[in-house]
Amino acid sequence: MLMPDDILTAKHRIDKYIVNTPVLRSDLLNEITGHNIFFKMESFQITGAFKVRGVLNYLCFLKERNMLPSRVVTYSSGNHAQAIAWASRMLDIRKVRVYMAKDTSNLKQQSTRELGAEVTLTGTRAAAEERAYLDGLSSGTVFIHPSDNDLVIAGAGTLTYEALKTVDNVDAVFAACGGGALVSGCYLASKLFEHKPDILAAEPKTANDASISYKKGKIFRFSKSPTTIADGARTLGLSARTFNYIKKINGIFEIEEKDIIYWTAWLSHLLNISCEPTSAMPMAAGFNWLEKQVTKKNILVIISGGNVDQKTNKVIWNSDHLNRPPTFKALSVLT
Amino acid sequence: MLMPDDILTAKHRIDKYIVNTPVLRSDLLNEITGHNIFFKMESFQITGAFKVRGVLNYLCFLKERNMLPSRVVTYSSGNHAQAIAWASRMLDIRKVRVYMAKDTSNLKQQSTRELGAEVTLTGTRAAAEERAYLDGLSSGTVFIHPSDNDLVIAGAGTLTYEALKTVDNVDAVFAACGGGALVSGCYLASKLFEHKPDILAAEPKTANDASISYKKGKIFRFSKSPTTIADGARTLGLSARTFNYIKKINGIFEIEEKDIIYWTAWLSHLLNISCEPTSAMPMAAGFNWLEKQVTKKNILVIISGGNVDQKTNKVIWNSDHLNRPPTFKALSVLT
Repeated sequence: MLMPDDILTAKHRIDKYIVNTPVLRSDLLNEITGHNIFFKMESFQITGAFKVRGVLNYLCFLKERNMLPSRVVTYSSGNHAQAIAWASRMLDIRKVRVYMAKDTSNLKQQSTRELGAEVTLTGTRAAAEERAYLDGLSSGTVFIHPSDNDLVIAGAGTLTYEALKTVDNVDAVFAACGGGALVSGCYLASKLFEHKPDILAAEPKTANDASISYKKGKIFRFSKSPTTIADGARTLGLSARTFNYIKKINGIFEIEEKDIIYWTAWLSHLLNISCEPTSAMPMAAGFNWLEKQVTKKNILVIISGGNVDQKTNKVIWNSDHLNRPPTFKALSVLT
Repeated sequence: MLMPDDILTAKHRIDKYIVNTPVLRSDLLNEITGHNIFFKMESFQITGAFKVRGVLNYLCFLKERNMLPSRVVTYSSGNHAQAIAWASRMLDIRKVRVYMAKDTSNLKQQSTRELGAEVTLTGTRAAAEERAYLDGLSSGTVFIHPSDNDLVIAGAGTLTYEALKTVDNVDAVFAACGGGALVSGCYLASKLFEHKPDILAAEPKTANDASISYKKGKIFRFSKSPTTIADGARTLGLSARTFNYIKKINGIFEIEEKDIIYWTAWLSHLLNISCEPTSAMPMAAGFNWLEKQVTKKNILVIISGGNVDQKTNKVIWNSDHLNRPPTFKALSVLT
């Protein structure tokens, strides 16, 4: 099991390579809700998502021990792939292969190739996982799993650590749940602070494996990749490693596709950013959670990625969500 | 005539109210071109555009002299309106009226109203200008022109000053030209530095009044608002005040609509931001300018605003520009 201090070690290890991404606010959203909402902008991280933190933590750990491989392999829905490609290039690892399901965003495929990695498309997500794992057994090769890896989880935790160092008295942290590294890292990082925030996860209603696992107390796994616009959450299931932490968090919200689209449009507008549908889910969850609060709260919403392809943008902007501002149905007057 | 030092006075005056917006880079774009391109991100300014700088400089100037009005009026294509509404509210001016042509972005109308201003729609842009000017003659009222005002120009210049303080040895600055306050401010700010960059403007080919004026040496003015996706550049013409500076800059690029759309998509993708079509024009101009250079250059591209409505987003993302990376046709090998 990881300890909260492992987040500090990771932060120290990767700090010189990564961006300490800004924390933003939206005055309008704070006015509408009467609460304080802070956004940790990992969409401005190198390669546009939080993934590079975990990958670097693992590779730099190996480098410290003179164990850097000559070849790295993985499977990915896109952001992990770009992180692997970027970090490998930066550390002079020349050979990188990424297995992706053929329905992976073209843009994420293209961006991964632009960073020097070879991309192999497979029929299904499960096939990508299987082939990456087997390829990882080749000589001189390391397989870096996107979430089932302690060093990757600790790296992911560094962003929550940074944000909680920046914003005092956060009552709850909201993060998207795919394979679970981000949420596990949030959970661990939160233990480093005196004022410990609740940790809440969000996943698509159509891809609710973590929510089912959380309720049942044992891991539920999809046999095929679920359909959702939130491409970062098309994971088949949590690993035993991430479930260890996720079973202890304070709740998991299941977000409907229409709400994912609505908040993707609204966060783009309110923060003038490019926001992945996956990163809009924690905002939907946070809004819902705030409606039930009776005292004024500070929440942290993690915008974990900003890589949006044209196909997704076309769906988001097909109809006008911006002419319908968020309506906040508070349970009671705040005290 | 303004002097470069007026930019410093403005910066000092408005500094505590505004965001010193970040300067970003895109590794991919620098790799493709072989040059260094820096982006001044005014889309992260309060109300999502540079306009608040000029408005605040004017209102704070009046406040210093105990001359704050009880009412402010203006006309605007949207960003100036939001800046007026925000700054007036912040300075406790309760009455704000904005005249807008009826084809103004719904989102910009809505955002202006959300900030407490009354919006009056007019048939044409010329009618909005006329009515705002006449209304400005009412007792207790001040009309703040979006560009034909020395204090507004000096305020706009502060962003270029900030950027040139941050990035050394900038060879050229690229900015969008609407009414001309932004470009005039760039010109003035550039004179404060020892390494003086060229100042280049960009406007839509279909709304090329500044370019015609620049070539002829006298102001050309459209009789009706030109058609372009770059809503910040639908101005009828420069004023004598802004033409004074603009006639001295190093050139004006006329950008085709297809290139405005292409670079809006690509800047959104490369920087993970929301970028107004108006702000994509200087990138198109900068790319074109760089292709003709024979030595390695540092350029500054001003992303002046990030307020994009659904209708515009739908046009931008209707077809896939992201599958066609920028092709750089260099005139010669860089020395």
